[in-house]
Amino acid sequence: MGYSEMCPRYEKAIEIFGKRWTGLLLRILLDKPKRFGEFRVQVPDLSDRMLSERLTELEAEGIIQRIVHTGKPVIIEYDLTPKGRALEPVVQALETWANAWEQR
Amino acid sequence: MGYSEMCPRYEKAIEIFGKRWTGLLLRILLDKPKRFGEFRVQVPDLSDRMLSERLTELEAEGIIQRIVHTGKPVIIEYDLTPKGRALEPVVQALETWANAWEQR
Repeated sequence: MGYSEMCPRYEKAIEIFGKRWTGLLLRILLDKPKRFGEFRVQVPDLSDRMLSERLTELEAEGIIQRIVHTGKPVIIEYDLTPKGRALEPVVQALETWANAWEQR
Repeated sequence: MGYSEMCPRYEKAIEIFGKRWTGLLLRILLDKPKRFGEFRVQVPDLSDRMLSERLTELEAEGIIQRIVHTGKPVIIEYDLTPKGRALEPVVQALETWANAWEQR
């Protein structure tokens, strides 16, 4: 496949994945579904507003889904869709590279 | 390894890789070394200024290196360093995902 055919999708993938915090949120979600507050505990530097924005974007891209557990209280979790889980090799490849080559 | 230990390097890796055009330039370099003008042919939308900026950044990160072939005329090529070539699995994982999940 030539560059001209491949580029738009590849660039789109990088655009999604490359946004600040997104790669980190995906990495956290690979472990298991998370509630809004759980992200905040794991990434204290991330503001509510930015977290909310990123989650909305990822939901719009079909990468994560909201799961509503009815009950009292209602519990809302965020989980990866199959499309999102398919990003695991990307997360792993970046982690491997970062561990091998990036100084702290 | 906990999030607090891993995050800085992983986030740094995403920050480098996630910049506009960078992932594409790396993908092009995986094929073979390129001269400045060759990038321009393959990525016509990329301005000289932006290309120059990205190449300088990648050189500063130790991901690419300039190779000067003395002669008349002098030929300057850009090639991946071992650190840069180690990003190949990241490029491949993103391509695989983009092909499988991103619509044009």
